[in-house]
Amino acid sequence: MRNARYGAIEAGGTKFICEVTDADGTPLAATRIATTTPKDTLAAVMAFFDTQQQQLGVISAIGIAAFGPLDLRPDSPAFGSILATPKPQWSHVNLVSPLQQRFGCAMGIDTDVNAAALAEALQGAGKGCSNVVYVTVGTGIGGGVFTEGRTLKGALHPEMGHIRVLRHPHDADFAGCCPFHGDCLEGLASGPAIAARFGKPLDQLADATAAVDIIGYYLGQLAATCILLLSPERLIFGGGVMQQQALYPVIRQTVSRLINGYVGIGATDTALQQLIVPPGLGEHAGIAGALALAKQAEAA
Amino acid sequence: MRNARYGAIEAGGTKFICEVTDADGTPLAATRIATTTPKDTLAAVMAFFDTQQQQLGVISAIGIAAFGPLDLRPDSPAFGSILATPKPQWSHVNLVSPLQQRFGCAMGIDTDVNAAALAEALQGAGKGCSNVVYVTVGTGIGGGVFTEGRTLKGALHPEMGHIRVLRHPHDADFAGCCPFHGDCLEGLASGPAIAARFGKPLDQLADATAAVDIIGYYLGQLAATCILLLSPERLIFGGGVMQQQALYPVIRQTVSRLINGYVGIGATDTALQQLIVPPGLGEHAGIAGALALAKQAEAA
Repeated sequence: MRNARYGAIEAGGTKFICEVTDADGTPLAATRIATTTPKDTLAAVMAFFDTQQQQLGVISAIGIAAFGPLDLRPDSPAFGSILATPKPQWSHVNLVSPLQQRFGCAMGIDTDVNAAALAEALQGAGKGCSNVVYVTVGTGIGGGVFTEGRTLKGALHPEMGHIRVLRHPHDADFAGCCPFHGDCLEGLASGPAIAARFGKPLDQLADATAAVDIIGYYLGQLAATCILLLSPERLIFGGGVMQQQALYPVIRQTVSRLINGYVGIGATDTALQQLIVPPGLGEHAGIAGALALAKQAEAA
Repeated sequence: MRNARYGAIEAGGTKFICEVTDADGTPLAATRIATTTPKDTLAAVMAFFDTQQQQLGVISAIGIAAFGPLDLRPDSPAFGSILATPKPQWSHVNLVSPLQQRFGCAMGIDTDVNAAALAEALQGAGKGCSNVVYVTVGTGIGGGVFTEGRTLKGALHPEMGHIRVLRHPHDADFAGCCPFHGDCLEGLASGPAIAARFGKPLDQLADATAAVDIIGYYLGQLAATCILLLSPERLIFGGGVMQQQALYPVIRQTVSRLINGYVGIGATDTALQQLIVPPGLGEHAGIAGALALAKQAEAA
Protein backbone atom coordinates (compact mmCIF):
# COMPACT_ATOMS: atom_id res chain seq x y z
CA MET A 1 0.00 0.00 0.00
CA ARG A 2 1.48 3.33 -1.05
CA ASN A 3 -0.09 5.30 1.78
CA ALA A 4 0.60 2.72 4.46
CA ARG A 5 2.08 3.99 7.72
CA TYR A 6 4.35 1.99 10.00
CA GLY A 7 5.35 2.51 13.61
CA ALA A 8 8.82 1.66 14.93
CA ILE A 9 9.97 1.71 18.55
CA GLU A 10 13.49 1.25 19.83
CA ALA A 11 12.84 0.59 23.51
CA GLY A 12 16.01 1.19 25.48
CA GLY A 13 16.94 1.50 29.12
CA THR A 14 17.41 5.27 28.94
CA LYS A 15 15.12 6.29 26.06
CA PHE A 16 12.40 5.06 23.73
CA ILE A 17 12.90 6.23 20.14
CA CYS A 18 9.62 6.23 18.18
CA GLU A 19 9.11 6.78 14.48
CA VAL A 20 6.29 6.74 11.98
CA THR A 21 7.38 5.98 8.43
CA ASP A 22 5.85 5.54 5.01
CA ALA A 23 5.98 2.25 3.11
CA ASP A 24 9.50 2.99 1.88
CA GLY A 25 10.76 3.49 5.41
CA THR A 26 11.10 7.25 5.10
CA PRO A 27 10.53 8.78 8.56
CA LEU A 28 7.49 11.07 8.66
CA ALA A 29 7.65 11.79 12.38
CA ALA A 30 9.98 10.86 15.22
CA THR A 31 10.41 11.45 18.93
CA ARG A 32 12.56 10.47 21.89
CA ILE A 33 10.90 9.64 25.18
CA ALA A 34 12.93 9.25 28.38
CA THR A 35 12.58 5.81 29.97
CA THR A 36 11.00 6.51 33.35
CA THR A 37 8.25 4.35 34.86
CA PRO A 38 6.61 1.81 32.55
CA LYS A 39 3.24 3.55 32.95
CA ASP A 40 4.46 7.03 32.05
CA THR A 41 6.80 5.87 29.30
CA LEU A 42 4.20 3.72 27.54
CA ALA A 43 1.58 6.45 27.91
CA ALA A 44 3.90 8.91 26.15
CA VAL A 45 4.63 6.36 23.42
CA MET A 46 0.94 5.80 22.81
CA ALA A 47 0.19 9.52 22.80
CA PHE A 48 2.85 10.02 20.11
CA PHE A 49 1.39 7.35 17.84
CA ASP A 50 -2.16 8.58 18.53
CA THR A 51 -1.26 12.06 17.39
CA GLN A 52 0.71 10.89 14.36
CA GLN A 53 -2.02 8.50 13.29
CA GLN A 54 -4.53 11.36 13.26
CA GLN A 55 -2.21 13.49 11.15
CA LEU A 56 -0.57 10.92 8.88
CA GLY A 57 -3.11 8.15 8.50
CA VAL A 58 -3.78 4.71 9.95
CA ILE A 59 -0.73 2.79 11.17
CA SER A 60 -0.66 -0.68 9.58
CA ALA A 61 1.83 -2.30 11.92
CA ILE A 62 4.17 -1.47 14.80
CA GLY A 63 7.55 -3.09 15.45
CA ILE A 64 9.43 -2.96 18.74
CA ALA A 65 13.17 -3.52 19.21
CA ALA A 66 13.53 -3.77 22.97
CA PHE A 67 16.04 -4.26 25.73
CA GLY A 68 15.59 -7.69 27.24
CA PRO A 69 15.36 -10.32 28.29
CA LEU A 70 12.01 -10.74 26.52
CA ASP A 71 9.34 -13.39 26.31
CA LEU A 72 9.15 -13.99 22.54
CA ARG A 73 7.40 -17.37 22.53
CA PRO A 74 4.36 -16.86 20.32
CA ASP A 75 2.21 -19.23 22.41
CA SER A 76 3.15 -17.69 25.76
CA PRO A 77 0.52 -15.71 27.72
CA ALA A 78 3.36 -13.28 28.52
CA PHE A 79 4.41 -12.84 24.86
CA GLY A 80 5.91 -9.40 24.43
CA SER A 81 6.84 -8.96 28.10
CA ILE A 82 10.17 -8.00 29.57
CA LEU A 83 11.34 -10.84 31.81
CA ALA A 84 13.15 -10.37 35.12
CA THR A 85 15.43 -7.36 34.61
CA PRO A 86 17.63 -5.40 37.01
CA LYS A 87 15.94 -2.22 35.70
CA PRO A 88 13.57 -1.17 38.52
CA GLN A 89 9.83 -1.56 37.78
CA TRP A 90 10.33 -2.96 34.26
CA SER A 91 10.25 -6.68 35.09
CA HIS A 92 7.17 -8.39 33.62
CA VAL A 93 5.99 -5.29 31.76
CA ASN A 94 4.22 -6.20 28.54
CA LEU A 95 5.32 -3.91 25.71
CA VAL A 96 3.04 -5.35 23.06
CA SER A 97 -0.40 -5.68 24.60
CA PRO A 98 -1.14 -2.01 25.45
CA LEU A 99 -0.17 -0.92 21.93
CA GLN A 100 -2.11 -3.75 20.37
CA GLN A 101 -5.20 -2.86 22.37
CA ARG A 102 -4.95 0.80 21.45
CA PHE A 103 -4.08 0.51 17.76
CA GLY A 104 -5.40 -2.95 16.84
CA CYS A 105 -2.69 -3.39 14.25
CA ALA A 106 -0.12 -6.10 13.52
CA MET A 107 2.67 -6.06 16.11
CA GLY A 108 6.24 -7.35 15.95
CA ILE A 109 8.74 -7.50 18.77
CA ASP A 110 12.28 -8.76 19.20
CA THR A 111 15.43 -7.97 21.14
CA ASP A 112 17.26 -4.81 20.14
CA VAL A 113 20.22 -6.91 18.92
CA ASN A 114 18.09 -9.37 16.95
CA ALA A 115 16.36 -6.37 15.36
CA ALA A 116 19.74 -4.83 14.54
CA ALA A 117 20.88 -8.12 12.98
CA LEU A 118 17.70 -8.13 10.89
CA ALA A 119 18.17 -4.54 9.72
CA GLU A 120 21.87 -5.00 8.96
CA ALA A 121 21.04 -8.16 6.97
CA LEU A 122 18.27 -6.49 4.98
CA GLN A 123 19.89 -3.16 4.24
CA GLY A 124 23.22 -2.78 6.03
CA ALA A 125 26.60 -4.49 6.29
CA GLY A 126 25.01 -7.93 5.87
CA LYS A 127 22.94 -7.13 2.80
CA GLY A 128 22.67 -10.18 0.55
CA CYS A 129 23.85 -12.60 3.24
CA SER A 130 21.68 -15.45 4.45
CA ASN A 131 23.24 -15.66 7.94
CA VAL A 132 24.36 -12.61 9.91
CA VAL A 133 25.40 -12.10 13.52
CA TYR A 134 25.26 -8.62 15.09
CA VAL A 135 27.18 -8.01 18.31
CA THR A 136 27.00 -4.80 20.29
CA VAL A 137 29.74 -3.95 22.76
CA GLY A 138 28.77 -1.13 25.12
CA THR A 139 27.39 -0.96 28.64
CA GLY A 140 26.69 -4.65 28.12
CA ILE A 141 27.54 -7.13 25.40
CA GLY A 142 24.72 -8.67 23.39
CA GLY A 143 24.31 -10.45 20.10
CA GLY A 144 21.51 -11.04 17.63
CA VAL A 145 21.25 -13.63 14.88
CA PHE A 146 19.65 -13.42 11.45
CA THR A 147 19.21 -16.67 9.55
CA GLU A 148 17.49 -17.04 6.20
CA GLY A 149 15.02 -14.22 6.47
CA ARG A 150 14.30 -14.09 10.18
CA THR A 151 15.88 -13.73 13.60
CA LEU A 152 16.84 -16.62 15.85
CA LYS A 153 14.66 -17.24 18.87
CA GLY A 154 13.93 -20.39 20.82
CA ALA A 155 13.52 -21.09 24.51
CA LEU A 156 14.59 -17.45 24.96
CA HIS A 157 16.87 -15.60 22.51
CA PRO A 158 20.64 -15.33 22.12
CA GLU A 159 22.42 -13.98 25.21
CA MET A 160 25.93 -14.42 23.89
CA GLY A 161 27.52 -11.67 25.96
CA HIS A 162 27.78 -14.08 28.87
CA ILE A 163 29.95 -16.83 27.38
CA ARG A 164 33.10 -17.76 29.26
CA VAL A 165 36.43 -16.87 27.68
CA LEU A 166 40.07 -17.78 28.14
CA ARG A 167 41.99 -15.19 30.11
CA HIS A 168 44.47 -12.96 28.39
CA PRO A 169 47.88 -13.58 30.03
CA HIS A 170 48.25 -9.86 30.87
CA ASP A 171 44.79 -9.67 32.42
CA ALA A 172 44.92 -12.40 35.02
CA ASP A 173 44.04 -10.30 38.06
CA PHE A 174 40.85 -8.42 37.12
CA ALA A 175 37.90 -10.24 38.69
CA GLY A 176 35.39 -9.08 36.08
CA CYS A 177 32.28 -7.01 36.70
CA CYS A 178 29.32 -9.19 35.69
CA PRO A 179 27.01 -9.52 38.70
CA PHE A 180 26.05 -13.04 37.57
CA HIS A 181 29.32 -14.48 36.32
CA GLY A 182 32.20 -12.23 37.30
CA ASP A 183 34.61 -12.81 34.44
CA CYS A 184 32.33 -13.84 31.60
CA LEU A 185 32.82 -11.93 28.32
CA GLU A 186 30.59 -9.03 29.41
CA GLY A 187 32.32 -8.96 32.78
CA LEU A 188 35.71 -8.62 31.08
CA ALA A 189 35.13 -6.63 27.87
CA SER A 190 32.07 -4.35 28.29
CA GLY A 191 32.37 -0.58 28.68
CA PRO A 192 32.20 -0.74 32.50
CA ALA A 193 34.81 -3.52 32.57
CA ILE A 194 37.09 -1.38 30.41
CA ALA A 195 36.55 1.66 32.63
CA ALA A 196 37.30 -0.40 35.74
CA ARG A 197 40.69 -1.51 34.38
CA PHE A 198 41.87 1.33 32.20
CA GLY A 199 40.01 4.34 33.64
CA LYS A 200 38.76 5.56 30.24
CA PRO A 201 37.05 4.30 27.10
CA LEU A 202 39.49 2.60 24.72
CA ASP A 203 39.20 5.36 22.13
CA GLN A 204 40.29 7.96 24.71
CA LEU A 205 43.44 6.25 25.98
CA ALA A 206 46.72 7.95 25.06
CA ASP A 207 48.26 4.56 24.31
CA ALA A 208 45.55 1.96 23.85
CA THR A 209 47.73 -0.81 22.39
CA ALA A 210 47.89 -3.08 25.44
CA ALA A 211 44.23 -2.55 26.37
CA VAL A 212 43.04 -3.15 22.79
CA ASP A 213 45.06 -6.35 22.70
CA ILE A 214 43.29 -7.63 25.82
CA ILE A 215 39.74 -6.58 24.89
CA GLY A 216 40.16 -7.64 21.26
CA TYR A 217 41.31 -11.07 22.42
CA TYR A 218 38.09 -11.54 24.40
CA LEU A 219 35.85 -10.24 21.60
CA GLY A 220 37.78 -12.40 19.12
CA GLN A 221 36.87 -15.46 21.18
CA LEU A 222 33.19 -14.57 20.84
CA ALA A 223 33.74 -14.11 17.11
CA ALA A 224 35.39 -17.54 16.78
CA THR A 225 32.63 -19.16 18.84
CA CYS A 226 29.94 -17.50 16.70
CA ILE A 227 31.65 -18.75 13.56
CA LEU A 228 31.86 -22.32 14.85
CA LEU A 229 28.25 -22.44 16.11
CA LEU A 230 26.38 -20.17 13.69
CA SER A 231 28.46 -20.09 10.50
CA PRO A 232 27.59 -16.48 9.63
CA GLU A 233 28.59 -14.93 6.33
CA ARG A 234 28.90 -11.60 8.12
CA LEU A 235 29.78 -10.93 11.77
CA ILE A 236 29.11 -7.30 12.66
CA PHE A 237 30.61 -5.65 15.74
CA GLY A 238 28.99 -2.39 16.79
CA GLY A 239 28.36 -0.38 19.95
CA GLY A 240 30.27 2.34 21.75
CA VAL A 241 33.36 0.28 22.60
CA MET A 242 33.89 -0.47 18.89
CA GLN A 243 34.51 3.25 18.29
CA GLN A 244 38.09 2.14 18.96
CA GLN A 245 38.70 0.94 15.41
CA ALA A 246 41.93 -0.82 16.36
CA LEU A 247 39.78 -3.57 17.89
CA TYR A 248 38.75 -4.93 14.49
CA PRO A 249 42.19 -6.17 13.39
CA VAL A 250 42.81 -7.71 16.84
CA ILE A 251 39.46 -9.53 16.68
CA ARG A 252 40.31 -10.82 13.19
CA GLN A 253 43.80 -11.93 14.26
CA THR A 254 42.36 -13.74 17.26
CA VAL A 255 39.86 -15.56 15.04
CA SER A 256 42.62 -16.52 12.63
CA ARG A 257 44.76 -17.87 15.47
CA LEU A 258 41.91 -19.77 17.18
CA ILE A 259 40.40 -21.29 14.02
CA ASN A 260 43.89 -21.96 12.61
CA GLY A 261 42.74 -22.71 9.06
CA TYR A 262 40.22 -25.35 10.09
CA VAL A 263 37.91 -26.20 7.15
CA GLY A 264 39.08 -23.03 5.44
CA ILE A 265 37.14 -20.65 7.71
CA GLY A 266 38.55 -17.13 7.47
CA ALA A 267 41.62 -18.61 5.84
CA THR A 268 42.82 -15.36 4.28
CA ASP A 269 43.10 -11.77 5.52
CA THR A 270 40.66 -10.73 2.80
CA ALA A 271 38.12 -13.32 3.91
CA LEU A 272 38.42 -12.15 7.53
CA GLN A 273 38.03 -8.51 6.52
CA GLN A 274 34.82 -9.39 4.69
CA LEU A 275 33.58 -11.58 7.54
CA ILE A 276 34.17 -9.31 10.56
CA VAL A 277 32.98 -5.78 9.90
CA PRO A 278 31.57 -2.60 11.47
CA PRO A 279 27.83 -1.90 11.20
CA GLY A 280 26.53 -0.46 7.95
CA LEU A 281 23.64 1.36 9.62
CA GLY A 282 25.54 2.83 12.57
CA GLU A 283 23.19 3.81 15.37
CA HIS A 284 20.14 3.43 13.13
CA ALA A 285 20.19 -0.38 13.16
CA GLY A 286 17.81 -0.58 16.12
CA ILE A 287 15.05 1.62 14.76
CA ALA A 288 15.52 0.21 11.24
CA GLY A 289 15.14 -3.24 12.76
CA ALA A 290 11.95 -2.19 14.54
CA LEU A 291 10.53 -1.05 11.22
CA ALA A 292 11.53 -4.35 9.60
CA LEU A 293 9.75 -6.18 12.43
CA ALA A 294 6.60 -4.15 11.75
CA LYS A 295 6.68 -5.15 8.09
CA GLN A 296 7.32 -8.80 8.93
CA ALA A 297 4.40 -8.74 11.38
CA GLU A 298 2.13 -7.26 8.74
CA ALA A 299 3.15 -9.91 6.20
CA ALA A 300 2.78 -12.82 8.65
CA MET B 1 1.64 -40.13 -2.82
CA ARG B 2 0.85 -43.45 -1.18
CA ASN B 3 3.23 -45.46 -3.33
CA ALA B 4 6.05 -42.93 -3.22
CA ARG B 5 9.52 -44.26 -2.55
CA TYR B 6 12.31 -42.36 -0.82
CA GLY B 7 16.03 -42.96 -0.68
CA ALA B 8 18.12 -42.19 2.41
CA ILE B 9 21.91 -42.33 2.71
CA GLU B 10 23.96 -41.94 5.85
CA ALA B 11 27.41 -41.34 4.40
CA GLY B 12 30.04 -42.03 7.03
CA GLY B 13 33.77 -42.39 7.10
CA THR B 14 33.64 -46.17 7.55
CA LYS B 15 30.30 -47.10 5.97
CA PHE B 16 27.45 -45.80 3.85
CA ILE B 17 24.04 -46.91 5.14
CA CYS B 18 21.39 -46.83 2.39
CA GLU B 19 17.65 -47.30 2.72
CA VAL B 20 14.58 -47.16 0.54
CA THR B 21 11.38 -46.37 2.42
CA ASP B 22 7.72 -45.85 1.72
CA ALA B 23 5.97 -42.53 2.31
CA ASP B 24 5.54 -43.32 6.02
CA GLY B 25 9.26 -43.90 6.44
CA THR B 26 8.95 -47.66 6.77
CA PRO B 27 12.15 -49.24 5.42
CA LEU B 28 11.52 -51.49 2.42
CA ALA B 29 15.18 -52.26 1.71
CA ALA B 30 18.49 -51.42 3.36
CA THR B 31 22.20 -52.07 2.91
CA ARG B 32 25.57 -51.18 4.34
CA ILE B 33 28.43 -50.38 1.99
CA ALA B 34 32.01 -50.07 3.25
CA THR B 35 33.54 -46.64 2.60
CA THR B 36 36.47 -47.37 0.29
CA THR B 37 37.34 -45.19 -2.70
CA PRO B 38 34.79 -42.59 -3.74
CA LYS B 39 34.38 -44.26 -7.13
CA ASP B 40 33.70 -47.77 -5.80
CA THR B 41 31.59 -46.59 -2.89
CA LEU B 42 29.32 -44.37 -4.97
CA ALA B 43 29.03 -47.07 -7.67
CA ALA B 44 27.79 -49.53 -5.02
CA VAL B 45 25.35 -46.94 -3.66
CA MET B 46 23.91 -46.30 -7.11
CA ALA B 47 23.68 -50.01 -7.90
CA PHE B 48 21.66 -50.51 -4.70
CA PHE B 49 19.16 -47.77 -5.55
CA ASP B 50 19.00 -48.94 -9.19
CA THR B 51 18.03 -52.44 -8.11
CA GLN B 52 15.56 -51.25 -5.49
CA GLN B 53 13.93 -48.78 -7.86
CA GLN B 54 13.28 -51.60 -10.34
CA GLN B 55 11.71 -53.73 -7.64
CA LEU B 56 9.90 -51.15 -5.49
CA GLY B 57 9.03 -48.34 -7.86
CA VAL B 58 10.35 -44.92 -8.78
CA ILE B 59 12.27 -43.07 -6.06
CA SER B 60 10.80 -39.57 -5.58
CA ALA B 61 13.69 -38.05 -3.66
CA ILE B 62 16.99 -38.97 -2.04
CA GLY B 63 18.44 -37.44 1.12
CA ILE B 64 22.07 -37.64 2.20
CA ALA B 65 23.38 -37.15 5.75
CA ALA B 66 27.13 -36.98 5.24
CA PHE B 67 30.38 -36.56 7.07
CA GLY B 68 31.82 -33.15 6.34
CA PRO B 69 32.83 -30.52 5.88
CA LEU B 70 30.37 -30.04 3.04
CA ASP B 71 29.61 -27.34 0.52
CA LEU B 72 25.91 -26.67 1.21
CA ARG B 73 25.57 -23.25 -0.43
CA PRO B 74 22.72 -23.68 -2.91
CA ASP B 75 24.29 -21.31 -5.44
CA SER B 76 27.74 -22.92 -5.32
CA PRO B 77 29.04 -24.87 -8.35
CA ALA B 78 30.40 -27.37 -5.80
CA PHE B 79 27.07 -27.78 -3.94
CA GLY B 80 26.92 -31.24 -2.43
CA SER B 81 30.71 -31.75 -2.37
CA ILE B 82 32.87 -32.78 0.53
CA LEU B 83 35.38 -29.99 1.19
CA ALA B 84 39.00 -30.56 2.20
CA THR B 85 38.96 -33.61 4.49
CA PRO B 86 41.76 -35.63 6.07
CA LYS B 87 40.05 -38.77 4.69
CA PRO B 88 42.21 -39.84 1.72
CA GLN B 89 40.67 -39.37 -1.75
CA TRP B 90 37.39 -37.92 -0.45
CA SER B 91 38.25 -34.21 -0.66
CA HIS B 92 36.15 -32.41 -3.30
CA VAL B 93 34.01 -35.47 -4.07
CA ASN B 94 30.50 -34.47 -5.05
CA LEU B 95 27.94 -36.73 -3.36
CA VAL B 96 24.86 -35.21 -4.97
CA SER B 97 25.60 -34.82 -8.67
CA PRO B 98 26.19 -38.50 -9.64
CA LEU B 99 22.95 -39.55 -7.91
CA GLN B 100 21.05 -36.65 -9.40
CA GLN B 101 22.29 -37.53 -12.88
CA ARG B 102 21.38 -41.17 -12.49
CA PHE B 103 17.99 -40.83 -10.78
CA GLY B 104 16.86 -37.34 -11.80
CA CYS B 105 14.95 -36.93 -8.56
CA ALA B 106 14.88 -34.25 -5.86
CA MET B 107 18.03 -34.38 -3.73
CA GLY B 108 18.70 -33.16 -0.19
CA ILE B 109 22.03 -33.10 1.60
CA ASP B 110 23.27 -31.91 4.96
CA THR B 111 25.86 -32.76 7.57
CA ASP B 112 25.24 -35.94 9.54
CA VAL B 113 24.76 -33.89 12.72
CA ASN B 114 22.41 -31.36 11.14
CA ALA B 115 20.41 -34.30 9.77
CA ALA B 116 20.36 -35.89 13.22
CA ALA B 117 19.16 -32.61 14.74
CA LEU B 118 16.39 -32.50 12.13
CA ALA B 119 15.31 -36.08 12.80
CA GLU B 120 15.42 -35.67 16.58
CA ALA B 121 13.36 -32.48 16.26
CA LEU B 122 10.76 -34.07 14.00
CA GLN B 123 10.34 -37.43 15.70
CA GLY B 124 12.85 -37.89 18.53
CA ALA B 125 13.89 -36.24 21.79
CA GLY B 126 13.19 -32.77 20.38
CA LYS B 127 9.72 -33.48 19.05
CA GLY B 128 7.50 -30.42 19.35
CA CYS B 129 10.44 -28.04 19.90
CA SER B 130 11.17 -25.16 17.56
CA ASN B 131 14.92 -25.03 18.29
CA VAL B 132 17.05 -28.13 18.88
CA VAL B 133 20.79 -28.72 19.08
CA TYR B 134 22.21 -32.22 18.53
CA VAL B 135 25.78 -32.91 19.66
CA THR B 136 27.61 -36.15 18.98
CA VAL B 137 30.63 -37.07 21.07
CA GLY B 138 32.65 -39.90 19.55
CA THR B 139 35.78 -40.10 17.40
CA GLY B 140 35.16 -36.40 16.89
CA ILE B 141 32.75 -33.89 18.37
CA GLY B 142 30.19 -32.28 16.11
CA GLY B 143 26.92 -30.44 16.49
CA GLY B 144 23.89 -29.76 14.33
CA VAL B 145 21.20 -27.13 14.73
CA PHE B 146 17.48 -27.26 13.95
CA THR B 147 15.59 -23.98 14.00
CA GLU B 148 11.92 -23.54 13.10
CA GLY B 149 11.59 -26.32 10.59
CA ARG B 150 15.04 -26.49 9.03
CA THR B 151 18.72 -26.92 9.78
CA LEU B 152 21.17 -24.07 10.25
CA LYS B 153 23.63 -23.46 7.46
CA GLY B 154 25.43 -20.33 6.34
CA ALA B 155 28.94 -19.67 5.11
CA LEU B 156 29.55 -23.34 6.01
CA HIS B 157 27.66 -25.19 8.76
CA PRO B 158 28.14 -25.53 12.52
CA GLU B 159 31.54 -26.94 13.52
CA MET B 160 31.05 -26.55 17.24
CA GLY B 161 33.38 -29.36 18.29
CA HIS B 162 36.32 -26.99 17.90
CA ILE B 163 35.42 -24.25 20.38
CA ARG B 164 37.98 -23.40 23.03
CA VAL B 165 37.19 -24.32 26.63
CA LEU B 166 38.47 -23.48 30.08
CA ARG B 167 40.80 -26.14 31.45
CA HIS B 168 39.64 -28.39 34.25
CA PRO B 169 42.02 -27.84 37.19
CA HIS B 170 42.85 -31.58 37.31
CA ASP B 171 43.58 -31.73 33.59
CA ALA B 172 46.19 -29.03 33.15
CA ASP B 173 48.91 -31.18 31.59
CA PHE B 174 47.21 -32.98 28.66
CA ALA B 175 48.12 -31.14 25.47
CA GLY B 176 44.97 -32.23 23.61
CA CYS B 177 44.84 -34.24 20.40
CA CYS B 178 43.22 -32.00 17.78
CA PRO B 179 45.64 -31.67 14.85
CA PHE B 180 44.37 -28.12 14.21
CA HIS B 181 43.92 -26.72 17.70
CA GLY B 182 45.50 -29.04 20.26
CA ASP B 183 43.28 -28.45 23.26
CA CYS B 184 40.01 -27.34 21.70
CA LEU B 185 36.90 -29.22 22.91
CA GLU B 186 37.39 -32.09 20.45
CA GLY B 187 41.08 -32.23 21.37
CA LEU B 188 40.16 -32.62 25.05
CA ALA B 189 36.88 -34.55 25.18
CA SER B 190 36.56 -36.79 22.09
CA GLY B 191 36.95 -40.56 22.24
CA PRO B 192 40.63 -40.45 21.20
CA ALA B 193 41.34 -37.71 23.78
CA ILE B 194 39.71 -39.86 26.46
CA ALA B 195 41.70 -42.92 25.38
CA ALA B 196 44.95 -40.92 25.43
CA ARG B 197 44.41 -39.85 29.04
CA PHE B 198 42.51 -42.68 30.67
CA GLY B 199 43.43 -45.68 28.50
CA LYS B 200 39.83 -46.83 28.03
CA PRO B 201 36.39 -45.49 27.09
CA LEU B 202 34.66 -43.80 30.04
CA ASP B 203 32.03 -46.54 30.31
CA GLN B 204 34.74 -49.18 30.75
CA LEU B 205 36.71 -47.54 33.55
CA ALA B 206 36.54 -49.28 36.93
CA ASP B 207 36.22 -45.89 38.66
CA ALA B 208 35.20 -43.25 36.15
CA THR B 209 34.33 -40.49 38.65
CA ALA B 210 37.37 -38.26 38.13
CA ALA B 211 37.43 -38.76 34.35
CA VAL B 212 33.70 -38.10 34.01
CA ASP B 213 34.12 -34.92 36.04
CA ILE B 214 36.77 -33.66 33.61
CA ILE B 215 35.04 -34.64 30.37
CA GLY B 216 31.62 -33.53 31.62
CA TYR B 217 33.07 -30.14 32.51
CA TYR B 218 34.27 -29.65 28.93
CA LEU B 219 31.01 -30.85 27.37
CA GLY B 220 29.08 -28.70 29.84
CA GLN B 221 30.92 -25.66 28.54
CA LEU B 222 29.74 -26.48 25.01
CA ALA B 223 26.22 -26.89 26.39
CA ALA B 224 26.33 -23.48 28.12
CA THR B 225 27.73 -21.85 24.98
CA CYS B 226 25.01 -23.44 22.83
CA ILE B 227 22.35 -22.18 25.23
CA LEU B 228 23.73 -18.62 25.17
CA LEU B 229 24.13 -18.46 21.38
CA LEU B 230 21.30 -20.66 20.08
CA SER B 231 18.68 -20.73 22.84
CA PRO B 232 17.57 -24.32 22.15
CA GLU B 233 14.56 -25.83 23.85
CA ARG B 234 16.33 -29.19 23.69
CA LEU B 235 20.06 -29.93 23.72
CA ILE B 236 20.71 -33.55 22.82
CA PHE B 237 24.02 -35.27 23.56
CA GLY B 238 24.62 -38.53 21.69
CA GLY B 239 27.51 -40.59 20.33
CA GLY B 240 29.66 -43.35 21.75
CA VAL B 241 31.22 -41.35 24.59
CA MET B 242 27.75 -40.57 25.97
CA GLN B 243 27.24 -44.28 26.65
CA GLN B 244 28.72 -43.24 30.00
CA GLN B 245 25.43 -42.00 31.42
CA ALA B 246 27.12 -40.30 34.36
CA LEU B 247 28.19 -37.54 31.96
CA TYR B 248 24.65 -36.13 31.75
CA PRO B 249 24.40 -34.91 35.36
CA VAL B 250 27.92 -33.44 35.20
CA ILE B 251 27.04 -31.57 32.00
CA ARG B 252 23.85 -30.25 33.65
CA GLN B 253 25.71 -29.21 36.81
CA THR B 254 28.33 -27.41 34.75
CA VAL B 255 25.63 -25.52 32.85
CA SER B 256 23.93 -24.58 36.10
CA ARG B 257 27.20 -23.29 37.54
CA LEU B 258 28.24 -21.36 34.43
CA ILE B 259 24.85 -19.79 33.67
CA ASN B 260 24.27 -19.16 37.40
CA GLY B 261 20.57 -18.34 37.10
CA TYR B 262 21.04 -15.69 34.43
CA VAL B 263 17.68 -14.75 32.85
CA GLY B 264 16.22 -17.92 34.35
CA ILE B 265 17.96 -20.29 31.91
CA GLY B 266 17.98 -23.83 33.31
CA ALA B 267 17.12 -22.38 36.68
CA THR B 268 15.84 -25.63 38.18
CA ASP B 269 17.02 -29.23 38.13
CA THR B 270 13.81 -30.19 36.35
CA ALA B 271 14.35 -27.57 33.67
CA LEU B 272 17.92 -28.79 33.12
CA GLN B 273 16.79 -32.41 32.91
CA GLN B 274 14.30 -31.46 30.23
CA LEU B 275 16.82 -29.28 28.39
CA ILE B 276 19.85 -31.61 28.25
CA VAL B 277 18.88 -35.11 27.20
CA PRO B 278 20.04 -38.29 25.43
CA PRO B 279 18.90 -38.91 21.83
CA GLY B 280 15.42 -40.28 21.28
CA LEU B 281 16.36 -42.08 18.06
CA GLY B 282 19.64 -43.63 19.23
CA GLU B 283 21.80 -44.59 16.28
CA HIS B 284 18.93 -44.13 13.83
CA ALA B 285 19.04 -40.33 13.92
CA GLY B 286 21.38 -40.13 10.93
CA ILE B 287 19.38 -42.27 8.53
CA ALA B 288 16.09 -40.81 9.79
CA GLY B 289 17.55 -37.37 9.13
CA ALA B 290 18.54 -38.39 5.60
CA LEU B 291 14.96 -39.46 4.96
CA ALA B 292 13.66 -36.17 6.34
CA LEU B 293 16.05 -34.34 4.00
CA ALA B 294 14.64 -36.30 1.05
CA LYS B 295 11.12 -35.24 1.99
CA GLN B 296 12.15 -31.62 2.47
CA ALA B 297 13.86 -31.66 -0.94
CA GLU B 298 10.75 -33.06 -2.57
CA ALA B 299 8.56 -30.38 -0.96
CA ALA B 300 10.92 -27.51 -1.83
